[in-house]
Amino acid sequence: MYRVAIVGLGNIGRFAIDAVNDAPDMELAGVVRRKAGEKEVRGVPIVENVGELGKVDVVLLCTPSRSVEDTAVTYLLKGIATVDSYDVHSKINGLRENLDKAAKAGNCAAVVSAGWDPGSNSIVRALLEACAPKGITYTNFGPGMSMGHTVVVKSKKGVAGALSMTIPTGTGVHRRMVYVQLELSAKLEDVAADIKADPYFSSDETHVIAVKDVSRLIDMGHGVNMVRKGVSGATHNQIFEFSMKINNPAVTSQIMVSCVRAAMRQKPGAYTMIEIPVVDFLPGDREHWVAKLV
Amino acid sequence: MYRVAIVGLGNIGRFAIDAVNDAPDMELAGVVRRKAGEKEVRGVPIVENVGELGKVDVVLLCTPSRSVEDTAVTYLLKGIATVDSYDVHSKINGLRENLDKAAKAGNCAAVVSAGWDPGSNSIVRALLEACAPKGITYTNFGPGMSMGHTVVVKSKKGVAGALSMTIPTGTGVHRRMVYVQLELSAKLEDVAADIKADPYFSSDETHVIAVKDVSRLIDMGHGVNMVRKGVSGATHNQIFEFSMKINNPAVTSQIMVSCVRAAMRQKPGAYTMIEIPVVDFLPGDREHWVAKLV
Repeated sequence: MYRVAIVGLGNIGRFAIDAVNDAPDMELAGVVRRKAGEKEVRGVPIVENVGELGKVDVVLLCTPSRSVEDTAVTYLLKGIATVDSYDVHSKINGLRENLDKAAKAGNCAAVVSAGWDPGSNSIVRALLEACAPKGITYTNFGPGMSMGHTVVVKSKKGVAGALSMTIPTGTGVHRRMVYVQLELSAKLEDVAADIKADPYFSSDETHVIAVKDVSRLIDMGHGVNMVRKGVSGATHNQIFEFSMKINNPAVTSQIMVSCVRAAMRQKPGAYTMIEIPVVDFLPGDREHWVAKLV
Repeated sequence: MYRVAIVGLGNIGRFAIDAVNDAPDMELAGVVRRKAGEKEVRGVPIVENVGELGKVDVVLLCTPSRSVEDTAVTYLLKGIATVDSYDVHSKINGLRENLDKAAKAGNCAAVVSAGWDPGSNSIVRALLEACAPKGITYTNFGPGMSMGHTVVVKSKKGVAGALSMTIPTGTGVHRRMVYVQLELSAKLEDVAADIKADPYFSSDETHVIAVKDVSRLIDMGHGVNMVRKGVSGATHNQIFEFSMKINNPAVTSQIMVSCVRAAMRQKPGAYTMIEIPVVDFLPGDREHWVAKLV
């Protein structure tokens, strides 16, 4: 049994409790938060320092991307493996390189950017490159809430509450449907102009709609549709498609939990999901899965 | 550059020539056939013994499944890595175990059951287990020609030519559309009864249709649609779907060629595709693909 701790108790951390509890080969040691406050959540101890939880093999870093590197290094140097869901695509190689050093120093492994994108979608994109090396892959996100865009809208003057939905219109192009709860003095046209001028929105088709209570609109469903049309050898028009409709924090935390096993099975170092055999994400022995899935 | 030889020159072997020629990191050494006959095909030398081709790093075994094991062992013991597309699902673990010994003895690697099913579909099935560990995955094949079923029909009395198409009707259930070119003396009702009583067809909905010239019906297109609905942690109704519409020998041989790199990058032993990091199927270095795909 792997002893696992969850670091952070936002949406993903809370859903991760379910995923660890459901794993046949894991034991939930507890939750680590900066300010513990409550002493437990659903029977799971909450502590401020992982040392209070006894032996811990792996931590799930359910914290914002910006704090992942420092937090991960601290654990890795203690010899505790880490799984994070760092999602700034352009900086993943840098994070991987830095965590690789820390992991080797701590003689353990880090799985970097575990989730659905980056994560399981990355594996599908790599697999489709192997099936048809020439061609184009389009990744179409949504419909679903964009955390990053929502935060930008919330920061605008006159906005009391916000929800930015990502709507796929095909070929990797997205529409932004922005729902705003306005402050009393604010005018929709001013707020809309402000949002549309922001670099987060200025190159996308953006619609801004005023609503009374944005909290009534928020659900955690999300999705993706990936399409590749390409060439295998000299044969054109090979067509591939992958789609999912999922609860976002539930699938993210589940994939992170599956990566706990991968972390325990790799040599010391840092790995993205495309660098790990998929069978290492699954419990039990390889022969079982070869017989069942291959 | 990896020096690659193709063993066998059926459909898959012929398409493999294109895929090797398109690979930026491979050089086609030649084709090995039991009876060479012609001296070359499209400028590629045909020989009866791999020793005539100089240094060869990897062979693609484009031969029937029944001859894969003996052929692979011969090459592996010579220190030449192998990639096969062995497709008898229930016997893959056994093949893998036997090739593992030979590969370790020859200090090289074997990739077993490389293709689309078993193969890339196996990776998708494994990935979906990691995303939603509880639930059901349905693999729906076709529409496309079933080689195995076609061979069975051809063996029936009164049949001059045959084509058995696999038609998906959902939830992993398939209809068999069987096209037969009858011998002059044969009656359709007798042939149909004979086919429907065969264990290959008796549990499937089977339609038998007489045609004048079955060769006019054959195309190499095939496809698959895989669906998983399952549970991530404690969250139900997570929905995943993977589909492709492909030229069958083109995608099979392309995946085998992508597995050449994997064979060269693994430690000595035998591996199915779910036991190999997907990045190892792609040319060049990991950092490039992490930046592009993760």
